[in-house]
Amino acid sequence: MTDQELPTRLRPREPLDAGPTRVERKQITRLHLLAAALKLMAEGRGFSSLSLREVTREAGVVPASFYRHFRDMEELGLSLVEQSGVTLRRLLREARRDGIPPTDMLRGSVLIYHRFLNANREQFAFIAGERSGGSRAIRNAIRTEEAHFAHEMAQDMRRLGLLSRLSTPALQMVCGLVVTTMLNAATDILDLPPDRPQAEAELVDNFVQQLRVILLGARVWKPPRR
Amino acid sequence: MTDQELPTRLRPREPLDAGPTRVERKQITRLHLLAAALKLMAEGRGFSSLSLREVTREAGVVPASFYRHFRDMEELGLSLVEQSGVTLRRLLREARRDGIPPTDMLRGSVLIYHRFLNANREQFAFIAGERSGGSRAIRNAIRTEEAHFAHEMAQDMRRLGLLSRLSTPALQMVCGLVVTTMLNAATDILDLPPDRPQAEAELVDNFVQQLRVILLGARVWKPPRR
Repeated sequence: MTDQELPTRLRPREPLDAGPTRVERKQITRLHLLAAALKLMAEGRGFSSLSLREVTREAGVVPASFYRHFRDMEELGLSLVEQSGVTLRRLLREARRDGIPPTDMLRGSVLIYHRFLNANREQFAFIAGERSGGSRAIRNAIRTEEAHFAHEMAQDMRRLGLLSRLSTPALQMVCGLVVTTMLNAATDILDLPPDRPQAEAELVDNFVQQLRVILLGARVWKPPRR
Repeated sequence: MTDQELPTRLRPREPLDAGPTRVERKQITRLHLLAAALKLMAEGRGFSSLSLREVTREAGVVPASFYRHFRDMEELGLSLVEQSGVTLRRLLREARRDGIPPTDMLRGSVLIYHRFLNANREQFAFIAGERSGGSRAIRNAIRTEEAHFAHEMAQDMRRLGLLSRLSTPALQMVCGLVVTTMLNAATDILDLPPDRPQAEAELVDNFVQQLRVILLGARVWKPPRR
């Protein structure tokens, strides 16, 4: 009989009142390291200026334990990109689940995005800051996540029957433009001081108008003649 | 009789064979400091990770002399933004002077931009990288330069009779979108390896198509009803 086959409370390493297992603890430390890097960057530091030692200090672990999780800082950065990509795509999933108000779809989508942005400030600040930041490997990884996101957005639009006249490559080109416009707006929105509702409203309004221009253009878009 | 009124070769401080004057030397050191910071960033460093000491070392001057030119690193950064803003607007001036090929204006403009980008790589890498980089003061200064550029672009379009149906605020909103799309493309284009003409052509093509979507949308754009 192996440990796995024992009734739960007889298993030697996982009594009912046990804390996290060794594997769970390792997972938790990893998350702490990622969160520590995000926190340092939210304080205005670029990723390429972070040192391994600072990140471990912020996470409350000894420097040596870093290497049980990541080969180097670049690998940590790439994990952050992955994690942020998942967050970004969760936005689409939530919009799919909750639906978008049909009366003013564009403004409705922007308000969903705005709320989501505020709930995930650190990850958006990271993505927006590092997509043209110091590390080429990180920039490339972010480009891949953006493309992935634009691809899912295009599929959602297909499903909703939006811009159905466009070919798939054209629709993806348009979604790519929407995504870069979204991420540009992210930096501007994150930089707003908390007590400026008028400035915030103007910014959101400008963002809605820019997306409207893009979608109007997409509606009449034709592939160039060669 | 003042020095200014003397015939040139009698002026005591500027004999014909003189080297740079003290004022000129000061100007040259200032330019060296700015160039040193740009060079360090072109090597993949974010502005906020640069130290005063590194910049003076790269410029070949003693650290103490930094303060004859800038109060601190932030002031140097703001000067870099100003300098890059001037470069950016020179693009419009050159396009105005040389004219844009009337057959395919959009592709013609993109090719001018592409050439200009390659001739001013360091400044574009700085602007594109720091517009959502670590320092809020620098981000804000870059936003101001972008707005200034978009404003001049809107005036040029008015002069050329383009999108004449749009109100001035609408035209500026559209030009703002064009500018952010240009700066996004800048990072992608600057990141291309030098020996990938096919990837470069595709990127430029995608950029042309995205601008076309924006201009098509701008042509049919109407202000939202309130």
